[in-house]
Amino acid sequence: MKVGILGCGVIGGGVLNLIDNLPASANIEVLKVFDLPSKKEMLGARYSDSIDDICENKDIDVVIEAMGGDKFPYECIVKALKNKKSVVTSNKETVSLHIEEFYALAKENGVKFMCEASVGGGIPLICSLIESVKVDKVDRIFGIINGTTNFVLTKMAKENLSMEDALAEARRLGFAEFDATADIEGLDLTRKICILSSIAYGGYVPYGEIYHYGISKVTKEILADVKERGYILKFVAESQRTGEKSAKVSVEPCLITADNPLSAVSYEFNAVYYNCASNDLLGFYGKGAGRYPTATAMVSDVRRIADGSNKYYYENSGDFEVDNFLASSKYYVYKNGKSEIVQGIKNASEYDFVARIF
Amino acid sequence: MKVGILGCGVIGGGVLNLIDNLPASANIEVLKVFDLPSKKEMLGARYSDSIDDICENKDIDVVIEAMGGDKFPYECIVKALKNKKSVVTSNKETVSLHIEEFYALAKENGVKFMCEASVGGGIPLICSLIESVKVDKVDRIFGIINGTTNFVLTKMAKENLSMEDALAEARRLGFAEFDATADIEGLDLTRKICILSSIAYGGYVPYGEIYHYGISKVTKEILADVKERGYILKFVAESQRTGEKSAKVSVEPCLITADNPLSAVSYEFNAVYYNCASNDLLGFYGKGAGRYPTATAMVSDVRRIADGSNKYYYENSGDFEVDNFLASSKYYVYKNGKSEIVQGIKNASEYDFVARIF
Repeated sequence: MKVGILGCGVIGGGVLNLIDNLPASANIEVLKVFDLPSKKEMLGARYSDSIDDICENKDIDVVIEAMGGDKFPYECIVKALKNKKSVVTSNKETVSLHIEEFYALAKENGVKFMCEASVGGGIPLICSLIESVKVDKVDRIFGIINGTTNFVLTKMAKENLSMEDALAEARRLGFAEFDATADIEGLDLTRKICILSSIAYGGYVPYGEIYHYGISKVTKEILADVKERGYILKFVAESQRTGEKSAKVSVEPCLITADNPLSAVSYEFNAVYYNCASNDLLGFYGKGAGRYPTATAMVSDVRRIADGSNKYYYENSGDFEVDNFLASSKYYVYKNGKSEIVQGIKNASEYDFVARIF
Repeated sequence: MKVGILGCGVIGGGVLNLIDNLPASANIEVLKVFDLPSKKEMLGARYSDSIDDICENKDIDVVIEAMGGDKFPYECIVKALKNKKSVVTSNKETVSLHIEEFYALAKENGVKFMCEASVGGGIPLICSLIESVKVDKVDRIFGIINGTTNFVLTKMAKENLSMEDALAEARRLGFAEFDATADIEGLDLTRKICILSSIAYGGYVPYGEIYHYGISKVTKEILADVKERGYILKFVAESQRTGEKSAKVSVEPCLITADNPLSAVSYEFNAVYYNCASNDLLGFYGKGAGRYPTATAMVSDVRRIADGSNKYYYENSGDFEVDNFLASSKYYVYKNGKSEIVQGIKNASEYDFVARIF
């Protein structure tokens, strides 16, 4: 299996290292790596400054996209698939927007589209979900799928820190970008629950229609009040199938109790659970980000392609209708230093902070 | 893919139902089912009272062994593999004793040996472990891998029941056999940690040499004392690789704290965690037993065989040397109504009850 890598940063470089260190019997080899000219010296003869050199290279079987962003990676993935290369990506941004098209192109061209690393980093989650979908019916998914915000909330709760201080610590340890808005406001989680739901239900759950409410308003006082009430605050993504083509999906802070399996998921760890008709509740836990966890997931995808396994094509059968939990669930509402628990809310913006009772 | 099933009890019958209800596109069909004559009427034309009719049937590709026990299933599995049938089994007893021979025979005959359902019921654990082993190095495994005892301990702790009453409740709900000795004394967990360790380390970790200490001596008083000390008591199987051909392995009650990911694994649920060199800590959660969780795992194995995926042959390279944690770990020791925590113990039988501090 001959591989080309697009982007040799933290993740792409990790993939390169892992593949270079596989035993020869694995029979996987990196032929070309695309990046900016600054990487030329490091990459030597394998360096390329041309996407076409990889996406149209007749010797390459698998293209690994590790660049991030949407537009350019999207064009590269489409080009690779049309040139009958299988594609492996960790890019949740472009996958959440174009998953239907990617699966359709892969099917049309007799190759594979694999995005294990786009959700939950190194956790073997999507491959397990695909195997479940083949023999079972998945109708609910919930989890903690953002390491940055889970680190921040854990740090705030356990060490009584302000969000600012917890975020600074997360940045210092490499768990948060300088601009953590996409994490704090829940955009990253929204992309991930979009991908998981679409694969689980076999129909696109539109990214743009998923309700999300961030954690930027969480304070020490709120965390103390939540604890006093016997709860733990977690930033949770959840998706429940409600009909043939409909689902309730949300990304929002939730109050959980200590006996919830999410309660011991702390710091940068992620965990995802899903309910199956035959197999009841399944859960997966691990590091949701980081160089080697993510790179390991991508190399496992390459191995699955080499093995001919985990065949799955997402069938385009029309978008899902998406609702949220605001009207139907109990909520913790906080305003002017006082909190109460109410049945259903109309508008979160009426309060200083709201969180769903999970 | 044509399938023969050996044993049509709770699990085998579940497998039959699931396969009969797969879409035609899955292309998996049950041709023959072996069981006692009492099942003849129910099974109709597919019934067979002859093992050879399945293990030597030239139209059958995969033999599913769902009988339980050791000697007879062992003979059937060997016969099937020698006749170039892939084998899927949930039988931890025979797998823990003969895993090397089964993998060797499968390799020799160009077929597959799959035992996902032998540990953790419906949890996609062994397939994930195999994928990890292919690209990473696994050096520690720990978990709650027996639903009966976890149910009993959870029930005792949460409802202040005696072991006798908790066991009676487990039996009533179908979570415990009438004779639960193999569970309570840890034999079932010992078989499972033997299988997981052998696959993870790629060498046989001898079942007969694994230290195990049961939970039969746990009382209400001990649980209250453990709680008072800020711990939760769980029945844990653990395996740590200590060298090229050595490991510490044990099955024993352990005291864990609330921030341990095992703390929220309650009642009949199981969870297994393992540490990887690149991928850090990965965890898996689900129902460790039950008709459809277990049957789902077996049907997933059949699908993996059909897909040509999850190739793995355990290489026989000599047994592992096995040690336990008694000398090196802290232990909670209980005698005559008093407890203390000590560094290392020589002999558990000197006390009324002991548990390792995890």
